[in-house]
Amino acid sequence: MTIQEGSYVMLFHTSRKKWLTRVNCEKKVHTHLGVIDVSSIIGLEYGSIVKTSEGKLIHLVEPTIHDFIMKSERRTQIIYPKDLGYIVARTGLKNGSKVLEIGTGSGALTTFLASIVKPSGHIYTFDVNPDFIEIAKRNLEKAAMTAYVTTHLHDPHLGLDIEDVDAAIVDLGDPWTMISQVYRALKPSGAFVAICPTMNQLEKSATELKQNNFIDVDCVELMIRNIEAREGMSRPSMRMIGHTTYLIFARKASNMLD
Amino acid sequence: MTIQEGSYVMLFHTSRKKWLTRVNCEKKVHTHLGVIDVSSIIGLEYGSIVKTSEGKLIHLVEPTIHDFIMKSERRTQIIYPKDLGYIVARTGLKNGSKVLEIGTGSGALTTFLASIVKPSGHIYTFDVNPDFIEIAKRNLEKAAMTAYVTTHLHDPHLGLDIEDVDAAIVDLGDPWTMISQVYRALKPSGAFVAICPTMNQLEKSATELKQNNFIDVDCVELMIRNIEAREGMSRPSMRMIGHTTYLIFARKASNMLD
Amino acid sequence: MTIQEGSYVMLFHTSRKKWLTRVNCEKKVHTHLGVIDVSSIIGLEYGSIVKTSEGKLIHLVEPTIHDFIMKSERRTQIIYPKDLGYIVARTGLKNGSKVLEIGTGSGALTTFLASIVKPSGHIYTFDVNPDFIEIAKRNLEKAAMTAYVTTHLHDPHLGLDIEDVDAAIVDLGDPWTMISQVYRALKPSGAFVAICPTMNQLEKSATELKQNNFIDVDCVELMIRNIEAREGMSRPSMRMIGHTTYLIFARKASNMLD
Amino acid sequence: MTIQEGSYVMLFHTSRKKWLTRVNCEKKVHTHLGVIDVSSIIGLEYGSIVKTSEGKLIHLVEPTIHDFIMKSERRTQIIYPKDLGYIVARTGLKNGSKVLEIGTGSGALTTFLASIVKPSGHIYTFDVNPDFIEIAKRNLEKAAMTAYVTTHLHDPHLGLDIEDVDAAIVDLGDPWTMISQVYRALKPSGAFVAICPTMNQLEKSATELKQNNFIDVDCVELMIRNIEAREGMSRPSMRMIGHTTYLIFARKASNMLD
Repeated sequence: MTIQEGSYVMLFHTSRKKWLTRVNCEKKVHTHLGVIDVSSIIGLEYGSIVKTSEGKLIHLVEPTIHDFIMKSERRTQIIYPKDLGYIVARTGLKNGSKVLEIGTGSGALTTFLASIVKPSGHIYTFDVNPDFIEIAKRNLEKAAMTAYVTTHLHDPHLGLDIEDVDAAIVDLGDPWTMISQVYRALKPSGAFVAICPTMNQLEKSATELKQNNFIDVDCVELMIRNIEAREGMSRPSMRMIGHTTYLIFARKASNMLD
Repeated sequence: MTIQEGSYVMLFHTSRKKWLTRVNCEKKVHTHLGVIDVSSIIGLEYGSIVKTSEGKLIHLVEPTIHDFIMKSERRTQIIYPKDLGYIVARTGLKNGSKVLEIGTGSGALTTFLASIVKPSGHIYTFDVNPDFIEIAKRNLEKAAMTAYVTTHLHDPHLGLDIEDVDAAIVDLGDPWTMISQVYRALKPSGAFVAICPTMNQLEKSATELKQNNFIDVDCVELMIRNIEAREGMSRPSMRMIGHTTYLIFARKASNMLD
Repeated sequence: MTIQEGSYVMLFHTSRKKWLTRVNCEKKVHTHLGVIDVSSIIGLEYGSIVKTSEGKLIHLVEPTIHDFIMKSERRTQIIYPKDLGYIVARTGLKNGSKVLEIGTGSGALTTFLASIVKPSGHIYTFDVNPDFIEIAKRNLEKAAMTAYVTTHLHDPHLGLDIEDVDAAIVDLGDPWTMISQVYRALKPSGAFVAICPTMNQLEKSATELKQNNFIDVDCVELMIRNIEAREGMSRPSMRMIGHTTYLIFARKASNMLD
Repeated sequence: MTIQEGSYVMLFHTSRKKWLTRVNCEKKVHTHLGVIDVSSIIGLEYGSIVKTSEGKLIHLVEPTIHDFIMKSERRTQIIYPKDLGYIVARTGLKNGSKVLEIGTGSGALTTFLASIVKPSGHIYTFDVNPDFIEIAKRNLEKAAMTAYVTTHLHDPHLGLDIEDVDAAIVDLGDPWTMISQVYRALKPSGAFVAICPTMNQLEKSATELKQNNFIDVDCVELMIRNIEAREGMSRPSMRMIGHTTYLIFARKASNMLD
């Protein structure tokens, strides 16, 4: 695929030295490895290699949704790929799913969910903070996901005018307060997810779920560790992220016997 | 949604007592909680509750892709949701992606990938074992993913007639032997993934990748821990899966300077 | 060292098939590997090998404190070696230390602490349950630690007549209730430890410590994973203990400025 | 206990701002919290509080072995408390034990082992690097453990003139090369330990042990995670050490049948 004016490209030197940029015929990217003349890459294929002004090699990598998320503009703690992926794998979200997101934040989860449910599915996302909504919109646009998302600048505690969603994901400080509203918004058997950085959020939310006709309530945390694979001396990395968040999953059940 | 003849339904009593079944007007499911008369649930809505012959409550839950995978027929170790999800989140697979899978096994990964790339994407999967291909086909059919997958009963070491894929996922005992073939099959910037249960597989594969024009080689393992969230006494579960597999990720780079 | 009447010996076949027994001239140990005639091992050296009646090899291993603890009689959840070791390494307990233990339980921690502080140090341990005290006494006797421990059958909430201890270790359901009493029992700069299986115990206790002139309050959890080291195919074990307990450490500070 | 000329004291402000110092009537410690006049603390009790020249509170904490180790002079990666403690708990080392250490390094393990086996036990430690031996000696002296340790400036690969030790701990790059020598040095049923940062070291050493009359070969890794316990919002810390080392444990068996 040819790189064009307006394309996004990951300028890759090493795993720790890479820059996501939008191609513009006048842009030059200044790095401590030298200057990269972005105008000169227009017309090249993704995968090509160019040099900086100091002769360092730069791979022109085609960015994925993962790259857009990891390089997104952010004002909040984003949800990391280990958690993003598990949310999708655990709830079975897929092309065509209709999803409610409560707490847009910087839009990392929104972007990822949109990439999964598009083109026939849709994400309805709510946040009370106008700055977050604006940042999320910019991140969605860069990743070309705007068409699959409706953003609502609205306090979700005041009510949600939405129903029959396949899944609802709550990323607020007080997820337990949203449970009866989420119950109404979900289709039968629909999936509930909450992002809970603290044990207290997890405990309150799980308790509330069990008292409100949710079943299969399951709480987990994921840990990811890098491995330094080197011939004859492989070992896990010394540094590790110890915790991002706990996650709760549940399914909506009927609230009465027939 | 109404349950019909031929529908799949998860008969749910508790998280540990649940059965995935296909609805048939003559079927009765015998459990230690009593008999469930499946013919009687035709015409009910998902989310309804019925009783066993012993009066135990059973929720009629609509199964998701996660449920189909976790209840799939298997003859091999399946890839678990924590790893399935991370593969998708890390490579940025999405609707429309074209994916090469080497090592079909029981088809758990195949099923999940198909659910993500459908309807316009496709999975090309290879296995040398005819029994595995048959099991995978049955699992794909149950999950309604057959149309998005081409299965090849073929030893991938003997060559792959496929190209320009967005991602290639290798789940063989000797992933390092497939690297030059995968290189040719991938599009520029395409994503490589290998499933490596042992450190030796990881080490050999990572070394081979670095010597064959792959960049951004990253090795990880994911650990998942259940949390028992109970009011005033929350704690992680005593039992935990300590290891499923290591994972390698890499991106295809050009093999020469222009 | 020669095995004698009354000696303890670990009859070792494999890591999962081993029996700790007291040597007695009339004893026969019946196992599914055949009968082991214990009288016949009197006079042998530790490290010798004998055969069962079915010809299976049995190593006569000299038991360590670790072996006594892992094979101890128990009615409560014991504290595991990963936690035992860290308590000693973190508090700097050593030969000569004087230790208060609140909650004797089955005496696993008591036994280990005694082995570290003996012969000039001492353990003062309290439990309200007479059954636990009896079990602990039997476990201490087997491990030859009785001389270094004073057991108190007494509810520690009702007061502790002890002072100037180097360290105090609380293993009760409500550790936060003991903090002011422990403060008085500790010498200046003395170490506080609490065993807290749940997050709520940890949170309440840490909060209480900070409000009661304890400093350097540090909360941790330890995870241990077995590795299956096999030539060319090493990997972590699939099964793992996910959680035993959280631990809190703190140091006693002065309660006023001079 | 009264602080005297020559005493060590931990000048503690917070868990991250603390300094281990030897008391000297002319010493002043300069910190970004102001100057601490060490001469003025002579005659005070441990546990007292003083102020810096800027009025910040400093607790005079009595240092433990843990404090000496964590603040030791080092030129090598030290072994951390989680691993130190587990080595002692797993091997059952205690007062009176005789221990062989191969690879003195900076002496952290040496110091800890000495504190456990003293006064009647002893540590025999070998290192080929004179700089390491010097550093270890200084660290042992600060912690008052010199009398319980014999340091050998000697390449352990060239032979060890020592026998009948209760335990041997190998902390070299090639632990598998020492196994037959360690076998001869150990008493019957004696404990073998190796510190193996990489999986390859672990695999080679475990294989060699099984072929050289060692039994109960057990490989583990320990992970430690800090918990931020705060009222109503407790959670694991975001940062974590992902790996320090793998550990192998084994017991010496007889090499022939009687």
